[in-house]
Amino acid sequence: MGNLIVGQSGGPTAVINSSLAGVIKAARKNNIPKVYGMHHGIEGFLQEDIIDIDDYITDNQDLSLLKRTPSAFLGSCRYKLPPIEGHEDVYEKMFDIMYRYDIEYFLYNGGNDSMDTIKMLSDYAAMHNKPQKFMGIPKTIDNDLPLTDHTPGYGSAAKYIATSMKEIIRDNESFGAAKPTICIVEIMGRHAGWLTAASALSRDADCSGPDLIYLPEVTFDVKNFMDRVKKLAAEKSSVVIAVSEGVKVADGRFVCELGVSSDYVDAFGHKQLSGTASYLANLVTSETGLKSRAVEFSSLQRCATHCASRVDVDEAYNVGYIAATSAINGKTGMMITIDVIEREPYLVRYNQYDIHEIANVERKVPKSWITEDGTNVSDAYIDYAKPLIIGTLLPYYSNGLPRHLTLNAKKKK
Amino acid sequence: MGNLIVGQSGGPTAVINSSLAGVIKAARKNNIPKVYGMHHGIEGFLQEDIIDIDDYITDNQDLSLLKRTPSAFLGSCRYKLPPIEGHEDVYEKMFDIMYRYDIEYFLYNGGNDSMDTIKMLSDYAAMHNKPQKFMGIPKTIDNDLPLTDHTPGYGSAAKYIATSMKEIIRDNESFGAAKPTICIVEIMGRHAGWLTAASALSRDADCSGPDLIYLPEVTFDVKNFMDRVKKLAAEKSSVVIAVSEGVKVADGRFVCELGVSSDYVDAFGHKQLSGTASYLANLVTSETGLKSRAVEFSSLQRCATHCASRVDVDEAYNVGYIAATSAINGKTGMMITIDVIEREPYLVRYNQYDIHEIANVERKVPKSWITEDGTNVSDAYIDYAKPLIIGTLLPYYSNGLPRHLTLNAKKKK
Repeated sequence: MGNLIVGQSGGPTAVINSSLAGVIKAARKNNIPKVYGMHHGIEGFLQEDIIDIDDYITDNQDLSLLKRTPSAFLGSCRYKLPPIEGHEDVYEKMFDIMYRYDIEYFLYNGGNDSMDTIKMLSDYAAMHNKPQKFMGIPKTIDNDLPLTDHTPGYGSAAKYIATSMKEIIRDNESFGAAKPTICIVEIMGRHAGWLTAASALSRDADCSGPDLIYLPEVTFDVKNFMDRVKKLAAEKSSVVIAVSEGVKVADGRFVCELGVSSDYVDAFGHKQLSGTASYLANLVTSETGLKSRAVEFSSLQRCATHCASRVDVDEAYNVGYIAATSAINGKTGMMITIDVIEREPYLVRYNQYDIHEIANVERKVPKSWITEDGTNVSDAYIDYAKPLIIGTLLPYYSNGLPRHLTLNAKKKK
Repeated sequence: MGNLIVGQSGGPTAVINSSLAGVIKAARKNNIPKVYGMHHGIEGFLQEDIIDIDDYITDNQDLSLLKRTPSAFLGSCRYKLPPIEGHEDVYEKMFDIMYRYDIEYFLYNGGNDSMDTIKMLSDYAAMHNKPQKFMGIPKTIDNDLPLTDHTPGYGSAAKYIATSMKEIIRDNESFGAAKPTICIVEIMGRHAGWLTAASALSRDADCSGPDLIYLPEVTFDVKNFMDRVKKLAAEKSSVVIAVSEGVKVADGRFVCELGVSSDYVDAFGHKQLSGTASYLANLVTSETGLKSRAVEFSSLQRCATHCASRVDVDEAYNVGYIAATSAINGKTGMMITIDVIEREPYLVRYNQYDIHEIANVERKVPKSWITEDGTNVSDAYIDYAKPLIIGTLLPYYSNGLPRHLTLNAKKKK
């Protein structure tokens, strides 16, 4: 029996290391002689930058700490393999490295591009009768992979967004005796509104949720936005608005591009883009005189493991475990998916799909889950997302802060 | 025995409601007939916008939920009382309201301005032989009140900043196989660097902490900053920099003002200020071509009760409890302070100081705690701040999110 290698790719998530923990556990359970890690994904692999996982992770306690560590433990990359035709040398080089390290199982954890990598490697293996098995492990906070009900990483990002949104609404409500404050919160997601929709999860008995929610699935109308803000400000003292970084106006420009007059360059000779929230907050204040505030959740959305969703952590672990087990059992060219059998009480089944059905298809928030006026999401979305943010995995604390497992820490062996 | 009233003022914190819980508990323990709350502080009080706390908070379970609720439960304000001389009518009006509600004890929870309010009210009472007692409860994430070792609210803000900084460093480290990424994180604090210094608490066995830390106590030199960034980028693939929103260059301008050419106005006719981090990130990229990213912790720093420090929550509760007890025992014109007897193991004693020694004095980070090159804090700061972020108070969860107590919820009675 040969060895196993696993890599992490694309923007990290709060739970990508849980999938890694699942892979390592399954490999050990199946007595795989060596478990290797790609240092910075395919990019490192091509330079033979390969890590012996046994040097860093020896027991279940290490795995438990790994599950509590944000971002990509092995290092990530944004690297697209070239098409096979005309680049056979790149593929031959990769298989050479696999032979050299006696690698039989190749697992890659990422989003659309990573599934493309698995597709091309398994295609190449099929064409040339190579024995290696290739499996994709889904991961993306953007939740835009098809076929799977949702993607590991999304639940924790959604929980972070909803938790922070609720705290920001509370904060914004604290003033407002004299005049209203408009708070505009910018949330990640260039093409799909899944993350911005998650702000609606803050709606509950103790919180009204954002007053307006703007997804990139709906064309943004500046005048309509201003009319709504003015109306809300006349009615209540705290107005909170969630807006995706990817919202565009009718002519196709991003909202954040609107503030730039065509001939203006900054002190360094570059067009300077403000963020979407900061543009809209400035617009509100200059048109209405109302106090406004812009908040950007930025990369915190994808690395806040300190408040990760327990459901998400467990599912991320499971897809890693199942991907490794499937490869060891001879499967190749597939991605693990999550099927939800019941949403309440929540019950899932794991499945695997031919990677050709998955690669490079992008899933958006269904139009029917967006309210007719385009400024909120319906209960159908809430029902969909609510089970994904349940439960917490408490960090291990040291000196008052969550402890992490890192490659920079001294090798164990 | 008369009634008690309590108000919250200024920027909220993650634990200001713990102080409120302490006040309510002490009042009930001492059989105060009625506990009132000012709706939006002094500003609401002057309009007789007064809340009967019994309508919302009846038992210890309510108090426990109150301790887990961010921001100001009663509503806050930014309202400065006018000087007594020439404005006796304002003060007479306030005392009229106190008599009308049979208020004997007046407690105010806030920062420098709020302590000024307590000073002036107690001065007025002394001048005119009024029997009411006035006590100040310290609160500010900025940690800039004098005489107290630290201020309730600071520990939780510091814990949030250090936790998020550690997660962001982890995130930034995940890439960098190809070329370095410079991440610049902007932290609150216009005049004092206490919050920015807290980013250094992320330094531990598993984390190198920010590479550079810029406090407003040190004049910012753009050329020196760029030289350091270039040197770091040549040495390592992940560079993370913490910078206070309040840093200024030698001529007194804020760094965030540097990007604005004097004659440029935006589409709305206003000078548009970018944030400090976003200005510096743009500068780095345009001068070096390196990838950069700007992160702003924004109001999340003061409302992230989901990861509040247990030490901070307890101390906030205690200063509220002691302030109320002291007033009931006849003290007036004082603020409660925290004296630290031992930093490790941590041991504190609560004290009270004449409010005249406190009001309108601003405490900064000591120069001796900043490294000689002005780009980091020394171990003396770490020793000071480490005990303040220890422990967590777990939220009560409902539907996967922290539950809060709110005035908008239906009255209990």
